Amino acid sequence: MTDITAAILVIGNEILSGKTQDANIAFLGKRLAKQGIHLVEVRIVRDIEDEIVKAVNDLRHQYTYVFTTGGIGPTHDDITVDSISKAFGLPVEINAEAKDRMETYYKSIGSELNEARLRMARAPVGAELISNTISVAPGVKIGNVYIMAGIPKVMQAMFEGLELEGGAPVVSRTLHCLLKEGDYAARLNDIQKAHNTIDIGSYPHYSKTGPSASLVVSGTDATEVDTAFEKVMKMAQDLNGQPEEE
Amino acid sequence: MTDITAAILVIGNEILSGKTQDANIAFLGKRLAKQGIHLVEVRIVRDIEDEIVKAVNDLRHQYTYVFTTGGIGPTHDDITVDSISKAFGLPVEINAEAKDRMETYYKSIGSELNEARLRMARAPVGAELISNTISVAPGVKIGNVYIMAGIPKVMQAMFEGLELEGGAPVVSRTLHCLLKEGDYAARLNDIQKAHNTIDIGSYPHYSKTGPSASLVVSGTDATEVDTAFEKVMKMAQDLNGQPEEE
Repeated sequence: MTDITAAILVIGNEILSGKTQDANIAFLGKRLAKQGIHLVEVRIVRDIEDEIVKAVNDLRHQYTYVFTTGGIGPTHDDITVDSISKAFGLPVEINAEAKDRMETYYKSIGSELNEARLRMARAPVGAELISNTISVAPGVKIGNVYIMAGIPKVMQAMFEGLELEGGAPVVSRTLHCLLKEGDYAARLNDIQKAHNTIDIGSYPHYSKTGPSASLVVSGTDATEVDTAFEKVMKMAQDLNGQPEEE
Repeated sequence: MTDITAAILVIGNEILSGKTQDANIAFLGKRLAKQGIHLVEVRIVRDIEDEIVKAVNDLRHQYTYVFTTGGIGPTHDDITVDSISKAFGLPVEINAEAKDRMETYYKSIGSELNEARLRMARAPVGAELISNTISVAPGVKIGNVYIMAGIPKVMQAMFEGLELEGGAPVVSRTLHCLLKEGDYAARLNDIQKAHNTIDIGSYPHYSKTGPSASLVVSGTDATEVDTAFEKVMKMAQDLNGQPEEE
């Protein structure tokens, strides 16, 4: 089976300046894994055309899917659709279906589809629309690139409506224990070596109550994940780490 | 003045799987902006050597600084130092100074510097160390690449100790208002056009109480930022948006 892969391209100065904490990467990472789509890379770039064009072209040729978030609103700093159209060498048009949906919506709320809002009906020629059940202005699918909103609530609504071909879903089991990484690293490595079709990750935490760690066993073969997980559990018990499955 | 730029490379399957919410990008973005260092790009890659090598080599030639987070612990999945050494074509050694610091530390807490922990003293030949006041095992500076921990508390302690040459700091002012983007987009665009040395960002929010937005005016020229900010404030007042400076 071919590996089904994805990249996320986050477009937004507000994430790079630290003013806004991204919440879309974690959501998409979890949801894609459930569908057996491996999120392999994320890039965050500024709202600058050349940077968006370069990143989209880098990513769309490498991965099955590219999901972009951000930069599709009505203001001057929203240039995602134009930049991605350029990356594909396609002209931009007012998408008639998008315009229809927005006209109906703005009329229904007693507002108007002014020139700024009409920018949100723009799409490269040949694009499909991604439904937006929150604020109507649609996302855009062109080739293997899914152009979505940056606002988490809107992005999530758009993602829910997508039909993506996935692969074998990744299953994972996590245990939390009161151990220092250096005290189990060698034994954990042995378990990883004995089960090389699955991944074992070790993530230490610092808290007031002392060191602890999460150990994550994941893979597409649930039996193998279970077998390795039991060994990791036993290791943590042997070391008096008070392990608990999360 | 030459623009001083930076990229962050986050190394970690746990971020891509959505199991862990990254907290380092927002911290570094804010802190770098204060020092006049422009964070231009972020990449997140898996704990896979080829992917780390490629990303580091892409980024270190493009930006003044590259900061990496994650993958420098004692377990088998921590391969950042080896991968970045490979990117530079440098052999890896046990750094004598790092080993000394760690030996002293582990002795002081009644623990031992076992083989797994000794992995954390590895560095490319010719590297400088980055102090770690939390858990001692140091970060590594090689060329323009700063290899730091993934645990936010440790990463932050490492960053505090760095001496970075910065540029003119970016100042920014933010107002929050109860407006829809589409109702002010055209006027905001006019203000942006009249002040092209600064950036004006528009970030809408959705909440139960209705639409609202943050408008961020930022740049290195504080006077120009103030002038543009007053115009944005007046615009929001004219539109009855109840603006408040954040």
